Amino acid sequence: MQNYGKAKLVEEKVFKDPVHRYIHVRDQVIWDLISTKEFQRLRRVRQLGTTYLVFHGAEHSRFNHSLGVYEIVRRIVDDIFSGRPDWDENERLVVLCAALLHDLGHGPFSHAFENVFHTDHEYYTRQILLGNTEVNDVLNRVSEGFPEKVAQVIEKTYPNETVVSLISSQIDADRMDYLQRDAYYTGVSYGHFDMERILRVMRPRKNKVVIKASGMHAVEDYIMSRYQMYLQVYFHPVSRSAEVVLNHILKRVKQLSIEGYQFAVEPTHFKPFFKGQISLEDYLSLDEYILYTYFQSWMKEKDPILSDLCSRFVNRNLFKYANLNPEEDPEKFNQIKNLLVEAGMDPDYYLYHDCTSDLPYDFYRPGEESTRIPIFLEKPNGEIRELSQESLVVDAIAGRIKTDHKVYYPKELLNRGKGSHIKQELLEALRSK
Amino acid sequence: MQNYGKAKLVEEKVFKDPVHRYIHVRDQVIWDLISTKEFQRLRRVRQLGTTYLVFHGAEHSRFNHSLGVYEIVRRIVDDIFSGRPDWDENERLVVLCAALLHDLGHGPFSHAFENVFHTDHEYYTRQILLGNTEVNDVLNRVSEGFPEKVAQVIEKTYPNETVVSLISSQIDADRMDYLQRDAYYTGVSYGHFDMERILRVMRPRKNKVVIKASGMHAVEDYIMSRYQMYLQVYFHPVSRSAEVVLNHILKRVKQLSIEGYQFAVEPTHFKPFFKGQISLEDYLSLDEYILYTYFQSWMKEKDPILSDLCSRFVNRNLFKYANLNPEEDPEKFNQIKNLLVEAGMDPDYYLYHDCTSDLPYDFYRPGEESTRIPIFLEKPNGEIRELSQESLVVDAIAGRIKTDHKVYYPKELLNRGKGSHIKQELLEALRSK
Amino acid sequence: MQNYGKAKLVEEKVFKDPVHRYIHVRDQVIWDLISTKEFQRLRRVRQLGTTYLVFHGAEHSRFNHSLGVYEIVRRIVDDIFSGRPDWDENERLVVLCAALLHDLGHGPFSHAFENVFHTDHEYYTRQILLGNTEVNDVLNRVSEGFPEKVAQVIEKTYPNETVVSLISSQIDADRMDYLQRDAYYTGVSYGHFDMERILRVMRPRKNKVVIKASGMHAVEDYIMSRYQMYLQVYFHPVSRSAEVVLNHILKRVKQLSIEGYQFAVEPTHFKPFFKGQISLEDYLSLDEYILYTYFQSWMKEKDPILSDLCSRFVNRNLFKYANLNPEEDPEKFNQIKNLLVEAGMDPDYYLYHDCTSDLPYDFYRPGEESTRIPIFLEKPNGEIRELSQESLVVDAIAGRIKTDHKVYYPKELLNRGKGSHIKQELLEALRSK
Amino acid sequence: MQNYGKAKLVEEKVFKDPVHRYIHVRDQVIWDLISTKEFQRLRRVRQLGTTYLVFHGAEHSRFNHSLGVYEIVRRIVDDIFSGRPDWDENERLVVLCAALLHDLGHGPFSHAFENVFHTDHEYYTRQILLGNTEVNDVLNRVSEGFPEKVAQVIEKTYPNETVVSLISSQIDADRMDYLQRDAYYTGVSYGHFDMERILRVMRPRKNKVVIKASGMHAVEDYIMSRYQMYLQVYFHPVSRSAEVVLNHILKRVKQLSIEGYQFAVEPTHFKPFFKGQISLEDYLSLDEYILYTYFQSWMKEKDPILSDLCSRFVNRNLFKYANLNPEEDPEKFNQIKNLLVEAGMDPDYYLYHDCTSDLPYDFYRPGEESTRIPIFLEKPNGEIRELSQESLVVDAIAGRIKTDHKVYYPKELLNRGKGSHIKQELLEALRSK
Repeated sequence: MQNYGKAKLVEEKVFKDPVHRYIHVRDQVIWDLISTKEFQRLRRVRQLGTTYLVFHGAEHSRFNHSLGVYEIVRRIVDDIFSGRPDWDENERLVVLCAALLHDLGHGPFSHAFENVFHTDHEYYTRQILLGNTEVNDVLNRVSEGFPEKVAQVIEKTYPNETVVSLISSQIDADRMDYLQRDAYYTGVSYGHFDMERILRVMRPRKNKVVIKASGMHAVEDYIMSRYQMYLQVYFHPVSRSAEVVLNHILKRVKQLSIEGYQFAVEPTHFKPFFKGQISLEDYLSLDEYILYTYFQSWMKEKDPILSDLCSRFVNRNLFKYANLNPEEDPEKFNQIKNLLVEAGMDPDYYLYHDCTSDLPYDFYRPGEESTRIPIFLEKPNGEIRELSQESLVVDAIAGRIKTDHKVYYPKELLNRGKGSHIKQELLEALRSK
Repeated sequence: MQNYGKAKLVEEKVFKDPVHRYIHVRDQVIWDLISTKEFQRLRRVRQLGTTYLVFHGAEHSRFNHSLGVYEIVRRIVDDIFSGRPDWDENERLVVLCAALLHDLGHGPFSHAFENVFHTDHEYYTRQILLGNTEVNDVLNRVSEGFPEKVAQVIEKTYPNETVVSLISSQIDADRMDYLQRDAYYTGVSYGHFDMERILRVMRPRKNKVVIKASGMHAVEDYIMSRYQMYLQVYFHPVSRSAEVVLNHILKRVKQLSIEGYQFAVEPTHFKPFFKGQISLEDYLSLDEYILYTYFQSWMKEKDPILSDLCSRFVNRNLFKYANLNPEEDPEKFNQIKNLLVEAGMDPDYYLYHDCTSDLPYDFYRPGEESTRIPIFLEKPNGEIRELSQESLVVDAIAGRIKTDHKVYYPKELLNRGKGSHIKQELLEALRSK
Repeated sequence: MQNYGKAKLVEEKVFKDPVHRYIHVRDQVIWDLISTKEFQRLRRVRQLGTTYLVFHGAEHSRFNHSLGVYEIVRRIVDDIFSGRPDWDENERLVVLCAALLHDLGHGPFSHAFENVFHTDHEYYTRQILLGNTEVNDVLNRVSEGFPEKVAQVIEKTYPNETVVSLISSQIDADRMDYLQRDAYYTGVSYGHFDMERILRVMRPRKNKVVIKASGMHAVEDYIMSRYQMYLQVYFHPVSRSAEVVLNHILKRVKQLSIEGYQFAVEPTHFKPFFKGQISLEDYLSLDEYILYTYFQSWMKEKDPILSDLCSRFVNRNLFKYANLNPEEDPEKFNQIKNLLVEAGMDPDYYLYHDCTSDLPYDFYRPGEESTRIPIFLEKPNGEIRELSQESLVVDAIAGRIKTDHKVYYPKELLNRGKGSHIKQELLEALRSK
Repeated sequence: MQNYGKAKLVEEKVFKDPVHRYIHVRDQVIWDLISTKEFQRLRRVRQLGTTYLVFHGAEHSRFNHSLGVYEIVRRIVDDIFSGRPDWDENERLVVLCAALLHDLGHGPFSHAFENVFHTDHEYYTRQILLGNTEVNDVLNRVSEGFPEKVAQVIEKTYPNETVVSLISSQIDADRMDYLQRDAYYTGVSYGHFDMERILRVMRPRKNKVVIKASGMHAVEDYIMSRYQMYLQVYFHPVSRSAEVVLNHILKRVKQLSIEGYQFAVEPTHFKPFFKGQISLEDYLSLDEYILYTYFQSWMKEKDPILSDLCSRFVNRNLFKYANLNPEEDPEKFNQIKNLLVEAGMDPDYYLYHDCTSDLPYDFYRPGEESTRIPIFLEKPNGEIRELSQESLVVDAIAGRIKTDHKVYYPKELLNRGKGSHIKQELLEALRSK
């Protein structure tokens, strides 16, 4: 079994991929990992959560993206790094596995789910790698400590930072795949950059990956793509509105369960999460299909809040939004609250304030993000410089983002306001986006 | 209310679409239809059923495709037909609605489902249009007989065949959208043709749509795209294998129910289908998410066949296939059967023969398909000719398809055969694809 | 004849265009202008001068680009502006003609040619529009003052600034075409932006064109494309090196002519330019094919400088370059000069210093470019703001460009230096790029 | 010097290419060949001759295409063939050189030029490879017989047919590049096929290249692209019309020269061609820029035929065409002739009949083209079959092309006919296309 890690398929397998054209698999280990049920489960978790409710094309799954990240890393190690002095060929398999499996712990609608149930997909990635799973079986066959190594790469504690950088840094395979893939599926014209050029000028260095300075403009273009994708796609207010509704559904289910409410359709799969005693099997039994199935059943629950919120989510009747910062304008926020109460709607479930800096935002800001390995440029004379020291564009935009405050509320409020005592001004405020 | 059919949105709405770039909505009716829950349900039915298990990119839904068909028809009527002598502007709305709603009756994994439960998506499209639904409410507001008109266009019984042709003919908006869309999401390089050119040379004629002869080569290219997409994508044997497993799951559930088997998780949503007493609400309550949720639960059923088949489907452990026509080689087919029985596997659920002519195949064959309106070319002198009379390429390939026979079986059979009395020859036959 | 300006072609004509897919011509006037010999001449003037010597794909002509600018303006006026309150339909034809003809006065390798002979393509555009030409004939048939109007639009003196803005502003059809077209032909991955989105949110206002604020990010993307195209393509040092050689050829021919040198092949076409007495016919008789023909002949002239420079240009044996600012480091610059003299090479023809701020640079800098109409965003409340006041990205990069100094010299100098008294340091300086 | 053939560049050089994204050069020999003046001359010969007069985007040169063919062969030998049993690594350099240089002997507007002056670009390719040229210098440095070997590969006399097949067969790198490149520059939607897939399944066999049968559909798609490109682009009648005018210019110049006509601008470069005593230097001194320069001068010649034809070509005032086969309808053809004579136009220069089978047509017809190596499919069992035996589509269309007869004539004839004795019928015949 000691050669399993080096076993090659008799014939290379390829997956047709719309973003990278083909995904090439030559290693038996990779092939076996893809066939595990834990990896196949990623087909039932969308890459972009609720975004498909705004960009209808974005129905792609994390399975899709995970293959893409693997393929990018494969190209880097096989076509670019292989044979170069600072690259250790023995790291090849561990980085390929880490690339493929980096999102393994993601559950359905991760952001909302983790927010309500305080789970952590990184924790579960580790559990799946090291627990009693098909993935662990495969990795263990490579060598005894191998699953732990893969986990370390994903968790950024692996000693060789060159390896870690390929998966987690400001210009890793993860981001390079998702920017292009999300752009492809949404159909937006941002998200394109010359990845081939960037790969061609990536070089392994001692505990580092550098980009040759001649590729700086391609990297700038990548940074700008990221900036645009965040503003245009990832932070889209309608998608955030769907997140709010989803969040409130989960919050309501949890609350009803605490209160001993008698569900017509019991939240069986959720019970371990209410108690906070979650086995790996419990975790893996969840996916977005199952959540949706519950939501559809619950549209008929007696509890009016749960049934209403589920209808809104399933039938895409989402909350409206308005630019409003409750801290700056507490009075207006209170007026909205009062109006809701008057209308018989509980503000806990029908009003929400968020701002984009609450979101998992990682637009390039050196210094602030201590855990992110920055982008290093290597000049012709060998000097290594952090990107924003060299690039006017990146320096200019790094850390200059406005925080965007929004409140979300049901559109029925607008009609409700008509002819009532509500101030015209408030209506105006709500309507303005 | 009489002007509702002509009401325009204050501001045009657009959907970003990866295939057509933008989908433009100007009519209040169209906007309202998209917001109905019956139309939103199409987000939970995949356009290509099980194909995503082969082409991982093909995760797109019928919602996606329906918007695309609408957009193509909108371009034809607004940009090409508008103002031309043989086009009646009063047909505009009915054809737009029919385009948008033509797939409304599709259920989850239509092909397998209809095969086992003898339902018919066309029947349900009519039910949704005319029944007690949000869609019917919207259509009725246009005018009293309007829902019936829309149904007639979709059912090809509408008197004006120019209108019908846009939705259902050998070169309708339906096909033009799905070829391009399915190519885009699978990532294959077939499926592209110059739709813009084809649209530009489409003309309304009395009860007909013609293509000006100058566009013949673009049409040939479209026909070849179709041919390639059928052979490469729609008939892909691995996708058919998944259909076989799915089919057998449904068959097994039905059989168990007849036999009075006690399910750990009851097939509640399926019961009306077992009895054949299906209300519209029953039908609309189904989607692919719900089926998947059942399949996941049933992986733990006591019945070994049901639980095994569900595991195979959910974890993508599908059947193998071999080229074999049981009619030509009944002996070999029987040998396989015997081998299955010996291995304790019921051939009713573990063996399947299909041939592509069983499939919903509509590659261009004039004459054979009496219900399909063919493609008409209009020559500069006004003469109208059916495409295959003019095009060498189309004439050459029309109706010249080989039937492809395959048997599907569990891969465990191959190992089983080793060292047993099974003839080497049979193994070879099974292995050869 | 008074209706000529409104005459439509019996059937719309289309040109297949790789950038805009199709270019649509419906007006008889436009069709007739395209057929004039002055417009056809633009096929013999490359859009990017010497750039094809670096990016071999960039062999496209100004003919190509001119059709593209026309098409963009046509889409704006016909699909977006038509029918809106602040748009005067009577301006349609003048702006279409101006779009098509805006580059009409460009000669071969404009930059180098104008530098040596002090001609001005804008002056000649006016001459062609108003002089004894086929173009003037066509325009005159529209109405008596029409050629003058077209000239005014191109020269930015036309009273209606809405019209001028479409052709000449920070976001005009000229730039939108050339960025995309030059990106397409060079094959670089920059230069893409969502033009369709920008066009959709353009609005005519009193003496202005505004972009609705919802399109700001598409405009940012356009600005970044411009930035990248300038740095990566338009300022590429090898292309500038070719310009230097070309410049020196023309300078040498002029000098030889002044000195009474007996040419084996007389520079017949150049003579009016030496004298500065240039008729319109003289000007129009020149194109890049003819210049190349002279250069090929002159490779055999006795004058060693002329023959050498011509060989370098024709056979692409260009100058090397190094980063050096003669003002900052006059000593080094002088050393190079001395080395050249020693090697028998005249520094006037074999050494050149340029910096990118000498080049026709128009990266977005509000304030500095008084003649450029800036980009106006219109907020939902109607307020109009200049782009850099709203966009962090644009504000950040506006006016922050480093000046790039380079000296160009023959590569033979490097070998020459070996083993000679030239300082190693100088060699290093020259080699470093 | 013996290692020159194996010398690698210190750093790989890349050319940005719009079709293949990047062209990679690692060999010193290839780099040196690209820098020769004979190879640089290909920048001044268009890939598609007069086609840019119909598809304005098609301004690309043979330089462009030659790099593309080189890159495809490089990918095949370095990424696919390298290390496989039937591939001899020693053939690598010869096939790369042959790929790069296969079009080296092409002159300006080859088809028309060869037709009038009976030159042969294949003969000149050999002369350039073996004569006193920079190309020969480079090749000779590899080894003594090397230039001859490269010539043999291009001429298909090289003993190893695997090598020859890569450059000249029904599916060689030449065609795979030009189909894609010509499609890219014209902007047509044909010409696309999945080259990456085809390359992946190409295999070297003894004296053969085969395509694994699994790639058959990609090959079918390639054949269809070829068919469409021939009909839509290469045989476009307006482009053929330009060829006719060009042909007649050259014929007229030759005739005038024989008659002793005194040219105002002497056809100096043509004289060796009149006499048929053409040195290699004479041949290489010609390119399309020079021809255009002559044509522009000759617009002012006294000879009315020459000056008229040159004006037509330069200003794109081409001949009209009509479907007419003189053999089938000699009377009509004679009527046209008479009408021309009456109008004072010499039918030798103003009338032309051609049919597409006269053109360099090589649509796939096994059997007929004895010199073309056909496409071989290799089945999983190792059996090798010629493509049309396996592919229904290819079998169906092979050899089924209609011959298309056209006559070309000046459009002035149409006006001339009005009100004269010319039969209405003839006019109709001319007008019908």
